[in-house]
Amino acid sequence: MSDVILIRPVSADEFAPFGDVLSCDGTPSALINQGNCERYTDLATLDFRDGTAGISLFDARPRQLPYRLDMVERHPRGSQAFIPMTAAPFLAIVAEGADAEPGRVHAFEVPAGTGINLHRNVWHGVLTPLHPPGLFAVIDRIGPGDNLEEYWFDTPLTVRAAP
Amino acid sequence: MSDVILIRPVSADEFAPFGDVLSCDGTPSALINQGNCERYTDLATLDFRDGTAGISLFDARPRQLPYRLDMVERHPRGSQAFIPMTAAPFLAIVAEGADAEPGRVHAFEVPAGTGINLHRNVWHGVLTPLHPPGLFAVIDRIGPGDNLEEYWFDTPLTVRAAP
Repeated sequence: MSDVILIRPVSADEFAPFGDVLSCDGTPSALINQGNCERYTDLATLDFRDGTAGISLFDARPRQLPYRLDMVERHPRGSQAFIPMTAAPFLAIVAEGADAEPGRVHAFEVPAGTGINLHRNVWHGVLTPLHPPGLFAVIDRIGPGDNLEEYWFDTPLTVRAAP
Repeated sequence: MSDVILIRPVSADEFAPFGDVLSCDGTPSALINQGNCERYTDLATLDFRDGTAGISLFDARPRQLPYRLDMVERHPRGSQAFIPMTAAPFLAIVAEGADAEPGRVHAFEVPAGTGINLHRNVWHGVLTPLHPPGLFAVIDRIGPGDNLEEYWFDTPLTVRAAP
């Protein structure tokens, strides 16, 4: 029987070992545009080493629950931020540890209106929207060199909604 | 009587002097994640000079049409990208020229699922969502020094839907 990972709501504290939660929670950094806009400034720890920041778009197939997790990947040369372009929640699946073999896996539901930024070299599942269209802006490293490692589980894990 | 600017749909060609249109039009750069995700890579000309890239969130008051445009601004030290976090169109108002006084003003409707990146030093109107919530991720320059110039029109302009 495969291991089961129960989804829990993301929180900045619980997600901190893996990355940043990008949301308008708390007090704005500034009120701009003659008072018409709240600005929450510089929410992500960007880390692109010898590369530079780029903005890409990802159009991903929405997934259903329970979700079969057969692999995780990581990017040794840079952080990777995911900004949903629709007001829908998505899953952020991450694993503990920085070794060649990932540690304990966590599955977080990221609510509508919220993005995430994965720290460099954090093991994570591929982008898993839960609703169509799975459209995201991605801010990650642009530059030469291999920036992808994959780890395939011997036995896939099952990611489920909490009962 | 104030000048009237008619809104027209954004296109990459017409917007090119001002910035980049960030969309999934055309052929993906890569098919990733075991074929489950189309990646459109590095769509924006980022230019942060002596600063670094940052991700901020803007929560802006939606505007109604006709829209009274009484000022434009520009950022001499960096480009600025706007990624809508809801599937709603917004207005991109820009002006020609790099002088102290902005030139001809254009108003573009950016469709749902599309972002823009303004080139460094392009005169532009403040963020103008047309639908609530006016929630955007902004990728712009983080660093010291003044990065904002404003220009107030003697007579405000009126931005209207095309008849």
